[in-house]
Amino acid sequence: MKYYILFFIALSYTTSIYSQIIYYDAAQFPLIGKISNLTETRYERLPADLKDICRSPVWNLGKNSSGLAVRFRSNSTSISAKWEVLSNIQMNHMTDTGIKGLDLYAWQSDHWQFVNSGRPSDKLNDKIIIQNMNPIEREYLLFLPLYDGLVTLSIGVDSTAYIDQPKLNLIRTNNPIIVYGTSITQGGCASRPGMSYTNILSRKLNMEIINLGFSGNGKLDYEIAELMSKRHDAALFVLDFIPNVTSDQIKERTANFVSILRKENPKTPILFIETVFFPHAFFDYTTKNIINEKNIVLRNEFDKLKKAGNKNIYYLEGKNLIGNDMEATVDGVHFTDLGFNRMAIILQRKIEKILK
Amino acid sequence: MKYYILFFIALSYTTSIYSQIIYYDAAQFPLIGKISNLTETRYERLPADLKDICRSPVWNLGKNSSGLAVRFRSNSTSISAKWEVLSNIQMNHMTDTGIKGLDLYAWQSDHWQFVNSGRPSDKLNDKIIIQNMNPIEREYLLFLPLYDGLVTLSIGVDSTAYIDQPKLNLIRTNNPIIVYGTSITQGGCASRPGMSYTNILSRKLNMEIINLGFSGNGKLDYEIAELMSKRHDAALFVLDFIPNVTSDQIKERTANFVSILRKENPKTPILFIETVFFPHAFFDYTTKNIINEKNIVLRNEFDKLKKAGNKNIYYLEGKNLIGNDMEATVDGVHFTDLGFNRMAIILQRKIEKILK
Repeated sequence: MKYYILFFIALSYTTSIYSQIIYYDAAQFPLIGKISNLTETRYERLPADLKDICRSPVWNLGKNSSGLAVRFRSNSTSISAKWEVLSNIQMNHMTDTGIKGLDLYAWQSDHWQFVNSGRPSDKLNDKIIIQNMNPIEREYLLFLPLYDGLVTLSIGVDSTAYIDQPKLNLIRTNNPIIVYGTSITQGGCASRPGMSYTNILSRKLNMEIINLGFSGNGKLDYEIAELMSKRHDAALFVLDFIPNVTSDQIKERTANFVSILRKENPKTPILFIETVFFPHAFFDYTTKNIINEKNIVLRNEFDKLKKAGNKNIYYLEGKNLIGNDMEATVDGVHFTDLGFNRMAIILQRKIEKILK
Repeated sequence: MKYYILFFIALSYTTSIYSQIIYYDAAQFPLIGKISNLTETRYERLPADLKDICRSPVWNLGKNSSGLAVRFRSNSTSISAKWEVLSNIQMNHMTDTGIKGLDLYAWQSDHWQFVNSGRPSDKLNDKIIIQNMNPIEREYLLFLPLYDGLVTLSIGVDSTAYIDQPKLNLIRTNNPIIVYGTSITQGGCASRPGMSYTNILSRKLNMEIINLGFSGNGKLDYEIAELMSKRHDAALFVLDFIPNVTSDQIKERTANFVSILRKENPKTPILFIETVFFPHAFFDYTTKNIINEKNIVLRNEFDKLKKAGNKNIYYLEGKNLIGNDMEATVDGVHFTDLGFNRMAIILQRKIEKILK
């Protein structure tokens, strides 16, 4: 065992002296999390034909790569990345790493395990994500920026190592879960891309999850319902839009949105999620009243759909979804990793029950 | 009940139309978390007489207001703040809100509850933290920036409301816990000031906790031990410095550091904390070896102190301190709120056992 370790140390010492990092365009590796491949550029979410059809804020947010991830395999002792972000935006309640960084996971026996994040420092970035690894083959999953887009992405490995297509069929892509929603759905405010709830779930369920969270714009746009409805292979539609709509909009649009989904997907399960109780609303009674009212209105719409004979529709209460200590947000609304982790645990249980 | 709510809504509607926000200099309210009041300015951590004695990075980090909090009482329906930060720094793995924002808690029956954070947008900030509250008296605790300093701070309340000294004796200040350490100790990378582990503990234990975490500089400086040793009223010294020292430094300086503390505090409990296992070290064996070695060296120093007859010294293993799913950091090292929350739960249990 000792000699085995010494062997690896010696080997890696050698490679670190004699090897350089060689970069490979990530476009040659599978990309997880896209609803359609007919996009203007590789690392964005909405198909080009929606450009002149959907509202412009939705279109622009589609350029954010939330939920996208690159799959590859390598025996390199180090993994680096070069990436150019699209807008290079900053926000005061989310880390740059979550907004426009990268997040690397490796398959470890029976689960996806965090390796390290790529922390951005500019529009163009060139960073070592991990080094000093034993030179053994691993399957990787690299999550892309949550609140910015990517112009280019290359992955760097030791010149003495290989990088190649994934071999194991991990993150099953044949029946994706499609999640529609808000800034929270999009991943605000995870500390790094891997900690948005849809990305946590894709690892835990080992399934492709398509993120259609549009910050401030989960307003039940029918164009998005049409887009979702075209994925007849979807295992589940998750609707998590409540924070972005008014009670009137819920009444006006929910049934229509669902009927668009249902037209070509009569049996695909649909899961409605209430808004969580925003911690600051404990004190801000205006927000509290709005939250409570909207959840009641959603429940009512759900009950009407059920009574009208809709089958395979499910409902998840917002209560306790991020715990009840009121500590799981950065600003009373957007989740920290604490909130996303709590929500993912509950949602995983719910989804596994639905898909069984 | 309905009328009662309507009454408050009507009242607040009235005040929001007729009242303005009046700002009060926070300097008139008690400040929690300082080891000494003899500082150059109000919102900093190290006494002025250390300026030419301690290493300059330590001195500069002393200007960061980590662990400091303002206590006040008000019946205002809104709480605002104006604050000017000292350096206006940014980091790519921590939110501006954690670095240089504010974080408001209120006493709610039997615990401190998150109200909302003050999110900075510039060197000078003027923000509403919470509004639309019922106009009842509450005790407040306002946590200050973790990784920047404050030049000025004013608290804004409705012109029709009062703001005054705290009435309840919360956050007991007679026997503080003094925590010495690293960037993690200082709060890197909590999403908002209230989520550093020392601030979580001060709320949970309802005790003053003095934060002497110095990012990258918890190097067992004897001047800091001297400073700590002057607080004869300390309930506990916590030593959490391992990530910032080498094995050699642990061997050379730990016993000396402790003997400085012990000179005038023969019975004060001292708690040593190992470094946690940094998640990326699962893959980066160089880091893994360093971590494992340093913890062994610390344990050895601890055992020697015990054998030499030192009483009231305690030890906390790093294993599992932030869970074992490897998900609790932003960059493989610095904790997110998920990590801080997990660590605080374990540390609270340990401290309560020691102080019993």
